[in-house]
Amino acid sequence: MTITRDDTLALDAADPLAFARARFTIPEGVTYLDGNSLGALPRRTATRVSDTITREWGEGLIRSWNSPAEGGAGWIDQPAKVGGKIARLIGGRADEVIVTDSTSINVFKLAAAALRMRPGRKVIVAEADNFPTDLYMLQGLAQLGGAELRVVPSDGILGALGDDVALLMLIHTHYRSGRVHDMAALTAAAHAAGALACWDLSHSAGAVEVDLGAAQADMALGCGYKFLNGGPGAPAYAYVAARHHGQFEQPLSGWMGHAAPFAFEGDYRAGPGVRRLLSGTPPVIGMAALGAGVATFDGVDMAAAAAKSRALGDLFITLVEQRCPEFGIACPRDGRGAQVSLSHASAYAIMQALIGRGVIGDFRAPDILRFGFPALYVRNIDVWQAVSVLAAVMQSGEWKDAQHQKRRAVT
Amino acid sequence: MTITRDDTLALDAADPLAFARARFTIPEGVTYLDGNSLGALPRRTATRVSDTITREWGEGLIRSWNSPAEGGAGWIDQPAKVGGKIARLIGGRADEVIVTDSTSINVFKLAAAALRMRPGRKVIVAEADNFPTDLYMLQGLAQLGGAELRVVPSDGILGALGDDVALLMLIHTHYRSGRVHDMAALTAAAHAAGALACWDLSHSAGAVEVDLGAAQADMALGCGYKFLNGGPGAPAYAYVAARHHGQFEQPLSGWMGHAAPFAFEGDYRAGPGVRRLLSGTPPVIGMAALGAGVATFDGVDMAAAAAKSRALGDLFITLVEQRCPEFGIACPRDGRGAQVSLSHASAYAIMQALIGRGVIGDFRAPDILRFGFPALYVRNIDVWQAVSVLAAVMQSGEWKDAQHQKRRAVT
Repeated sequence: MTITRDDTLALDAADPLAFARARFTIPEGVTYLDGNSLGALPRRTATRVSDTITREWGEGLIRSWNSPAEGGAGWIDQPAKVGGKIARLIGGRADEVIVTDSTSINVFKLAAAALRMRPGRKVIVAEADNFPTDLYMLQGLAQLGGAELRVVPSDGILGALGDDVALLMLIHTHYRSGRVHDMAALTAAAHAAGALACWDLSHSAGAVEVDLGAAQADMALGCGYKFLNGGPGAPAYAYVAARHHGQFEQPLSGWMGHAAPFAFEGDYRAGPGVRRLLSGTPPVIGMAALGAGVATFDGVDMAAAAAKSRALGDLFITLVEQRCPEFGIACPRDGRGAQVSLSHASAYAIMQALIGRGVIGDFRAPDILRFGFPALYVRNIDVWQAVSVLAAVMQSGEWKDAQHQKRRAVT
Repeated sequence: MTITRDDTLALDAADPLAFARARFTIPEGVTYLDGNSLGALPRRTATRVSDTITREWGEGLIRSWNSPAEGGAGWIDQPAKVGGKIARLIGGRADEVIVTDSTSINVFKLAAAALRMRPGRKVIVAEADNFPTDLYMLQGLAQLGGAELRVVPSDGILGALGDDVALLMLIHTHYRSGRVHDMAALTAAAHAAGALACWDLSHSAGAVEVDLGAAQADMALGCGYKFLNGGPGAPAYAYVAARHHGQFEQPLSGWMGHAAPFAFEGDYRAGPGVRRLLSGTPPVIGMAALGAGVATFDGVDMAAAAAKSRALGDLFITLVEQRCPEFGIACPRDGRGAQVSLSHASAYAIMQALIGRGVIGDFRAPDILRFGFPALYVRNIDVWQAVSVLAAVMQSGEWKDAQHQKRRAVT
């Protein structure tokens, strides 16, 4: 049965999450399907950040570091406070998550911490051909000595879990294909081998259902600027299961992770719980924006959001198959994150032509057009619109124009 | 000869840098002498950040990563661009400085890079009893193996530079006393021993004259939220002398430091020059605020700014000696940064009483009252006002009140 434009409008009219779109500002004339790369701007972010700058910094000045009870704006507590709000979206306890540094830096911290927790084991197992910063950071750690990296294809993970493995570090949702790993099963396999499991949730948090607690995951981390809507280069977060608190140690041991940061002691003493994952002074302005981004999930059930994203992706695939059969479907039909990937030999130029017409997805080498479907602001009519423009771009052949062939720095 | 209030007003009237104060918003009734901890809010920051959020992020969305020539806001170039502007203030070339991560994280990167550049040498010499995050990070690096930390008092630095030393890492201006090291002489001593020299400029950049090039410094780093006015938790910066470009390698090798970040290659290949100091995705919103902070130095000669700060500090010391002789002068008369430290057994409570009266400095354990004199916004009349309030607080004994004794988290 052919799906019509009216069908998609009817789906939107019945959508229990439709209210959430008003929490964002989407530019006129833009169909934004790249929230998996950079989330859209929440309506409250500018006000929240402006208040942090003008009132908290400008008027409160240094006093704003103190807690409200001490007459401050509570900046010192923001990493734990915003982390605690992210926790709900990933199945962690509020005291298991903290906002700090970048995804890359947190990969290094958690991997190094895991190695110390498994003395006598040196191997970190990771997946080849996924978003590479995790591998790059692990390569950096390995070059410092004491770690060995075992990079395997996804069907080689289980076989790589020998008794020399300290850590299985995986990216939960694949950045290019959107394939989602079975977190509980792979964590159990790591544990059966005597290893710890750490999950990169960058493309998962706010997109798919994640339950770190139920999966018995040991560690996790992720970025703040994709589905969490924290803004470009938002601070990242890290999770360590409560059962490991007090035991893990990480080597990027800066003063904010110290048990008594303002005692200025000569030797490092790790602070309590996930506080010891802090390193330098927390990025207050970026955390304010991240807090506003995470707040777009207030009152939103993650199971419902994940189901809506899956349904939007299914609709997109169905419409592409109906109207643009020249594209390959480069993602799983099931077990997929909040994104869909199409393959085409001219993927780059086609994506540039789409962007030129206001339909924003992104390109991933060598031949992938990637489209994200964040449940909070993407509608069924947007999916209809995107496929209609895609069909028009293919029919007109306008993607062959010279300006769409020219490579940009960020694609 | 006794200095009068009118004398300080006359000094302000003759101040060639007086114009710069209008670049900041200082709250009514506040005498802000803590810019060495958190710089005051520049007048343009809120607008600049708001534009980054509302126009660049909200409207440009993912496209803003691209350069202006490609229709973007140039986010991808911001770390180098803002770094290039900081370079002028510290005697570096524009292509020798990049904005990235925190001071703490950059300590780790540069120290690890130095160790690789001096194979066969394992020792890092650092100074005891200075701002401790540098030591904490070096302790973390040493625990990963391959490095040995030699922490010595300031008069033991030269004697510690044996032929096993890879790196001399020093904080240029002491956080508590304000004492400034002789960068050229100590760098030369490190080089004579075959070691590299790295300088933490957190309390120096924008405060005192720094000429990394003339001193032949190898590496440097510093924070953005003190005299550079970048806002709470602003991104930090790092410097590597051009003669080392292409040779140094750092282990926090995230995707943004890769030679081709968007090629998503499986193996890390370090990018050109200081670009390889990048790790994760740059904090765009924080960089916008930092850029506005650094811009407060536009048209300001650092020699003139440093001289003004010294003169303000001298005036403060003279007035304290005239009116509050019960305080010790806990900083050098010469060779001092843009700050003055007083000592008193009840320093904490006295500082709380001062803050209660709108004179904001800070306390550093165990007995130091610290006052900063950023040249861009502190006036001679502010110095008069601060010492007048200090004298009144001591005469009234109000600092003995219970509310001033209670410790706050951030002091």
